Order: sequence, then C-alpha cells, then structure tokens
Amino acid sequence: MQCAGAFRTRILTTYRIVTRRVDSCSVSTLPREEPARPLVQTLVPGPRSLELARELQEVSEARPIQFFHDPQQSFGNYVADVDGNKLLDAFCFIASLPLGYNHPNLIEAAQSSLWLPHLVQRPALGYSAPPEWVHTLRTKIMSVAPQGLASVQMTCGCGASAVENALKAAFIWKRTLERDCVDPSPTELESCMRNQEPGSPNSMVVVSFEHAFHGRLFGSLSTTRSKPIHKVDIPAFRNWPVLPFPESEQDETRCLELVEKTLKGNRVAALIIEPILSEGGDLHASPAFFRGLRALTRRYQVAMICDEVQTGVGATGRFWAHEYWSEGLEKSGPGTSTAAAEIAPDMVTFAKKMQASGFFFKPEFLPPQAYRIFSTWSGDPLRALQASVIIDTIAADRLVERVRIVGDYLSQALHGLNHPLIERIRGRGTFLAFDLPSPARRNRFLQDMRNRGVVVGGSGTKTVRLRPALIFDTHHADILLETLASAMASQQ
Amino acid sequence: MQCAGAFRTRILTTYRIVTRRVDSCSVSTLPREEPARPLVQTLVPGPRSLELARELQEVSEARPIQFFHDPQQSFGNYVADVDGNKLLDAFCFIASLPLGYNHPNLIEAAQSSLWLPHLVQRPALGYSAPPEWVHTLRTKIMSVAPQGLASVQMTCGCGASAVENALKAAFIWKRTLERDCVDPSPTELESCMRNQEPGSPNSMVVVSFEHAFHGRLFGSLSTTRSKPIHKVDIPAFRNWPVLPFPESEQDETRCLELVEKTLKGNRVAALIIEPILSEGGDLHASPAFFRGLRALTRRYQVAMICDEVQTGVGATGRFWAHEYWSEGLEKSGPGTSTAAAEIAPDMVTFAKKMQASGFFFKPEFLPPQAYRIFSTWSGDPLRALQASVIIDTIAADRLVERVRIVGDYLSQALHGLNHPLIERIRGRGTFLAFDLPSPARRNRFLQDMRNRGVVVGGSGTKTVRLRPALIFDTHHADILLETLASAMASQQ
Repeated sequence: MQCAGAFRTRILTTYRIVTRRVDSCSVSTLPREEPARPLVQTLVPGPRSLELARELQEVSEARPIQFFHDPQQSFGNYVADVDGNKLLDAFCFIASLPLGYNHPNLIEAAQSSLWLPHLVQRPALGYSAPPEWVHTLRTKIMSVAPQGLASVQMTCGCGASAVENALKAAFIWKRTLERDCVDPSPTELESCMRNQEPGSPNSMVVVSFEHAFHGRLFGSLSTTRSKPIHKVDIPAFRNWPVLPFPESEQDETRCLELVEKTLKGNRVAALIIEPILSEGGDLHASPAFFRGLRALTRRYQVAMICDEVQTGVGATGRFWAHEYWSEGLEKSGPGTSTAAAEIAPDMVTFAKKMQASGFFFKPEFLPPQAYRIFSTWSGDPLRALQASVIIDTIAADRLVERVRIVGDYLSQALHGLNHPLIERIRGRGTFLAFDLPSPARRNRFLQDMRNRGVVVGGSGTKTVRLRPALIFDTHHADILLETLASAMASQQ
Repeated sequence: MQCAGAFRTRILTTYRIVTRRVDSCSVSTLPREEPARPLVQTLVPGPRSLELARELQEVSEARPIQFFHDPQQSFGNYVADVDGNKLLDAFCFIASLPLGYNHPNLIEAAQSSLWLPHLVQRPALGYSAPPEWVHTLRTKIMSVAPQGLASVQMTCGCGASAVENALKAAFIWKRTLERDCVDPSPTELESCMRNQEPGSPNSMVVVSFEHAFHGRLFGSLSTTRSKPIHKVDIPAFRNWPVLPFPESEQDETRCLELVEKTLKGNRVAALIIEPILSEGGDLHASPAFFRGLRALTRRYQVAMICDEVQTGVGATGRFWAHEYWSEGLEKSGPGTSTAAAEIAPDMVTFAKKMQASGFFFKPEFLPPQAYRIFSTWSGDPLRALQASVIIDTIAADRLVERVRIVGDYLSQALHGLNHPLIERIRGRGTFLAFDLPSPARRNRFLQDMRNRGVVVGGSGTKTVRLRPALIFDTHHADILLETLASAMASQQ
C-alpha cells in the first residue's frame, strides 16, 4: 500500500498545491507544505483541547467538539490541532472543505482589497449589493449551475437556510398554480396573518424519505428523518409524509409505487431528496430510481428539490452528484442533452464545500412578487468570493477528474483489503463509505483512527464515511488505508 | 440647524473616526474621510445601478435592491453608490451597521493574520473550533451578555437562525420540565420520526404579537405577524397564538389580561417579543408592560425570548433595548440589581449590528443532551471577530453614550420642526421614527430623501424609521433635518 507509483503516473493533472508558494509576507507564518505523514503526540483530543472545551463549556455548547484545530498550522489535507498533532483529514469539517486548509489560491485572493470591505461590514445584499456581487453570481456561481437551472438564490450562512428557502419557493410556486392567479386574494392575505388556511396552506405538504437529513430549522427539520435526537421535542409539520428509501435495487419499484400513491393522494408542494442519503448512513439508489421520482413529480406537478448540501461540489466525481442520474442514458447518442434536461430537478441546494449557501432553480420558481424570498443579509459576499476561487481552482486543476481517479484507487484498495469486518463498501468518487459490525465498534474505530493520525467520520448507526477534500491524493489514500488496516488489526 | 456648536461642546467623547488614518498600504485606495455633505449626481438608483439590477435579475432576485453601493468609496456615515453619489446613510443596510463603513479599527483588525485562515476555510465550529473562538466568546461576546444571561449560542448567518434556535431551546426546556425526566422516552423517540405527538409536541405553542417580525424561516415566520407578503402561501404552525400589542399605555392592562388567559389556556413553550416592534412600525410599550410579560411568563413557566436582532447593540441608547425595562425601578435604591435580574428575559437574540448571529440564554436553557442545537458551521468566526472589534470600539469610544446625546438632539430637533405632516415622533437614542399621513406619501418621501442625498427607511405602513450607525453625529443630524425639511416643503 505504501507505494502507488505505477498508478500515480496515470494521473492527468499535476498536484500543484504542494509546489506553489505563498508569497505574501503578511502570511509568512502559515505553513506552505504538508507534512509527509501524520504526526501524533497526544491522544486526540489532547490536554489542551480538553482544557479549551472545559473553558468554552462554561459559556457555550462545547460537548460535540472533537478537538480544537490550529488554523495557523494546518495545510492541505492536514489539520493541526492545538496539542501539536497533525492529522490527515478525510472528514474535513463535516464534508465542507473543498480545497483543504489554507489553499494558496484562496490565501492570495483573500488578501485582495476587493475582499476587505466585505470583511468589515456585511452588506444587506437584497437591499443594496456591491457591483462585484453581480459578477460573482453571473460568471462564477452560475458557471456551475446544474443543467436546466438558470437562476440562483443565495441564502444566509447554512445549508438549512438553503433548504428552507427552496421549500418556500416551492410552496409559493404551487399555490400560484393552484389559485390560477398571481396575486393572493384578500382572504388569503388576512388568514395568513393568523397562520390559518387558505393563506397559510397548512394542508399542503413536503414529501421526504426515511433516513434523510435536510437541516435542523423548523421547516427543514420536518423533512429530516435521520435521527430522533435532531427531532425530538421540536414541533413539526405533522402531515408532511415520510416515505421509505429503497433498501435495494429490487425494492425501488415498491418505493416508487408508494411515492406515486402519496403524490396522488395529497396536496404536495415539493419532494426533497439527497442524491446520496449522507447523514442517514450513505444510502444509495439507482439512477433509474431518481429518474422515476423525476417523472412522478413532473406528472403530479410537484417541485423536485435535490439537496446537494453534502454531495455537491465534486467529491462524488461529478460536480453535482445528481449528474449521475443520467447514467445509462448517456450512451444513447442523439437526444442526450434532452434526456439530461428531462431528469434535471427543479431546484438544487448547496452549502458546505461551496462555503456559501443557496439554491439553483428553474426560473419559473422565482416568486411572482418581490420580497417573498428575502432576508436582511441575503447571503454573504465574502463566502461567495471564496466560492468563486474554489470554482476556478476546481476547473483549473481539474479536481473533479482527480477525484474520480483517486476515488477509484481508494475504493479498489478498500475492496482489496477484503477485511471480514468491513461491509458494504460503497460510494462515488472519494465520497465513500463502509459499515462496521456495530455502532460501538464503529465509534471505537473513529476514535482509534484519530489517535493514529487520521480523521474520518461516522454516519447512520454503524457507517464510516470518508469525506476528504478534492485535493486528496493517492499517497494520502495509502496512509489512510495503512492506518485503517492497523486500526482494524488492533480491534480484533 | 446648520450650526450645533454650542451643543457639540457637551459631547463627552471625541469623535475619533475622521481623524484616524488607515496606515496599511494595501488599503490605500479606501477613503479616509467623510465628505462634508452628500454629493448627488444622479437620481438614486442611477443608470449604473439600474443596469446592474437588470443584469442581476437575469440570474437571481434583484427587485428589492434599492441601489448598488460601492464599498471601496464608502466611509463613515456615507455610502457611495456606483453612480458616483455619496449619500448620508441613516438606514445602514437595514439597521445593521454599528460603525458605518470601513471603520479604521475594523480595517486594521481584518488585516491581521489571525483572520486570514477563517476567510479561506470556514470551520465547523461545533465540531472543531480554533482556540481563538474560546477567547472571542468568553472575553468579547460575553462581555456584552445581558444581565443574568450567562451563556451564548452562536448560529449561522442570520437573525432568523438565531430565533429558530432560541425557539428550539425553549421547546427542549419545556418538554424536559413536562416529562420530569431528562431523557425522552422510546415512544417519543419513535413518534418524532413521523412528526407526531408525543415526540413532536405539536400542541405546544409559541406566543407572539401582532405586528411582530422575527424572521422568515418556517418556525420564525410562524411568529412573524407584520405583513402578509412575508407569510402568504407558506404553511405555518396553525395553533401558535397571536396576541394584540398595546395601542397605548391605557391598553396595556387589557393586553396583559389576554396574555395571561393565553398562557393559562395553552401549552406554551415560549413568548417572543421585540423591545420595540421595528419592522411592524416602530411600536413601543411601557417598561411596565414588559415587566408584566416577564411576571406572567415566569408564573406560567414560559420561556421569555427578547428578540433584539434589530434593537440590540447600542442604537437605542442602551446596549440592549430591554435594559429600559427596569426604568422606574432604578431609582428605588437598594435591591436594584435584584430588580434587574427579576426582569431579565430568558433568552436574547442578536444579529444585524453584531454582524454575527446567536442568542444569549440562561444556563438552564442549555439542552441536557449534546447535538440538539447544532449545525455544521454553528456560527462564523470571521463575523464573530468582527463583533469583537465592534464591541471593543463601542466601549472605547463610549458610543452608547454618544447615541443618547445625538438621539436627544435629533429627537428634540424633530419635535422642534413642528411640521403638520409629521406625526408620532417616537423612539429611544437614535432609534427614532415618525409617521407621515399615508403609505404613498411615506414612500414618496423615502425616494425624495434619497434623491436629495440622505438614506432613511420605512417600517409598518406609513412610518419612517431612522437607523443610523452609532457614529452618527449632531452635524449628520443637522444635514438629515435640513434635507427632511426641504423634502417636506416640496411635498406640500
């Protein structure tokens, strides 16, 4: 596993990050190279992390903190912690770092005078944007718009806000269709102020799937079905249906029949689904299943929202994971782009690796009136500027192609281990996962890996999920695999 | 009005911003002084703004944009637009700029190497924070914690997320009290996955007030009651009650009786209220009314959430507007601090002028289990660093005291105008408002003021709201008053 030299010659793009230098003197203290291997000096979390957690817990929530990282000492695929450890990071802040730590392109761009004012005052973008906002959206963010989705709405700060606003757009669209009139009636305007029908369409629902995760605010949480700890004690929209996610390809027909029954029998504004159910345990379905959902949502005039908060931005080997939905259709030659347009969801949400949040949508989902999808800040220009550099770097360094190559390598090597305790290896690109025999075993494994210098994450009940940055290379994969092998050996 | 020299000698603090210089060469292009007066070269929005809006609307929502600002040319209380106008800004991105534009303290701090890594990768603060996060929360954010509120939870990006998470904390607290057991039962854990009782406490409610604004996501929107355009077509929690906000001090007893009836007759987790109903039209009630709410919420074991997203951070002449609730009690001598603790709400939300969002809370509102108030990013360290500098600058320059002085000056001058069309001048500090005779007249006035070089905002149906930065001075007030007088003269 140590040497993957022969394989590495196949890699098309040059791994430029380690050879580039950060030139600006103002950041001379930032590291410029990755360590050759993880460096582990204490247990993780170490004593300094534990002390900081204790101090933080006195005034705020610190219990979920795994360790305190040192942003000044982290670089590339390696996160440094405050106890002097340098860990190979294949989890990357819960799947949210596309270019690893302190990427030179970002460091350079961030020192531009263009960024500075946005750092010192946050503009209310919906009320008064700066001119570069137009440029950022039109030429950068829209350059990665999924096929068929010609508009974008940025939202404030997190994936949940992207989902909540996409759901709002779906409700407004559906109600506008239902009433066959753009403007709400006086009765609707009056009743909504009391949270009552018809203005508040409380019998209208959103359909989501078992094990789905779409966020933790009140609307998004009503569609989340992954774990009780997220949902218990919080009121939910009680009539929003939950449907089974197929347990196998054989199960997909049954599930699609249930979807059809539900769409037929309810007043449904939207169906929301992740291309890979991530938080819920890295659950996959076939492209045909998603195409089936698309056909049904189209037939019953239901908005199809594809939640790519975790799957988006390259890690699956495509920029958007839902691009795989055309698999099998691609070879059909003429009519391919028609087919791709046919399967396009109506909206695609993003956050995490974009570092900014929002959703792409078909123009018909723009509310007919202004101020209906709105908030004071309506996004964050700094985070959008970051997204611009990320998008450019992914294109210039052909990182999505790299992810496919490194992902294949990693996946094959995982299968090659043929370890009796490692079950159901699955995934796309480097967005990989496998199961261990029990939740306790999985949790011990995560801890053990970290203490050996490699950070990986959990999902579902007994799944290990790999969520490295897009700059994760085969030699990082080798270190991960070695560490995994020794961790597994010690568990037996 | 031109000269307020005699008055100005009373001002305690030196207005340091215009004399400080930005030294770093990397920002030499940023302006360092305010213009002496507004500079108006075109209508606002001008042709360049209109063109940018047209371009933006092709891919995103641009209809609510009033004009495009130029962050590189804005300074202090003056916002530059892309058409070369320099406008005195008494609205400040919908009440969200505490220190105006490009404040030297922020410019200087933002160039520190400490900020840089947070600009290039957004950490998942709930999962792995950097060490300075502990410092920022403990010594900066907590330094402005309202009395009695010893904990803080930062949230992602916007005021609505602060409110939604505060509401979640209230529900978790109330359910934990109700079941008299920290851990939810197996039945609760199972039923919440289907959005059903008892796990989803759908008969438990939040009480809010007519004309209130608390945000636009699904939970917060259910408590917002300001305008139908925010609410229509979006499902709401149908049993969450709305109560009248007093129309006058004489009306307060009736309103409190209705509150008591509602708290008695329902399963209420929280009552949420703004200290000044801002978006709804700058509606005020007496300190005694708020103390009455506090007494009732305590009696019926209901969490009292004070929503200070718009009112917080100094503009009312106190750091938090709810500090005024002790008015009348302060003179009672001994027992004052007990009285202040008695009236403290259970949670206080913030965003806007803090530039970061979250809520302060009494430690008993920390959920008994981890991961219940959580999200990937769980805040934004950049925006919290900004908040730190803002907090330090407000203290060092005694800006809250300044606001009281400038606010008194501005309020007296507004009254002094004695204009027949200006009604109900009201407010605290520079957080001032008045009414015009009709919505059409108010809207024309806002437009007219902007074309004369001064930005003010609207709220409610016919209210003009002033929301200048905390560095707004008496000579800015003079320009505002002059411009107002000529705008009014042209309307007659």
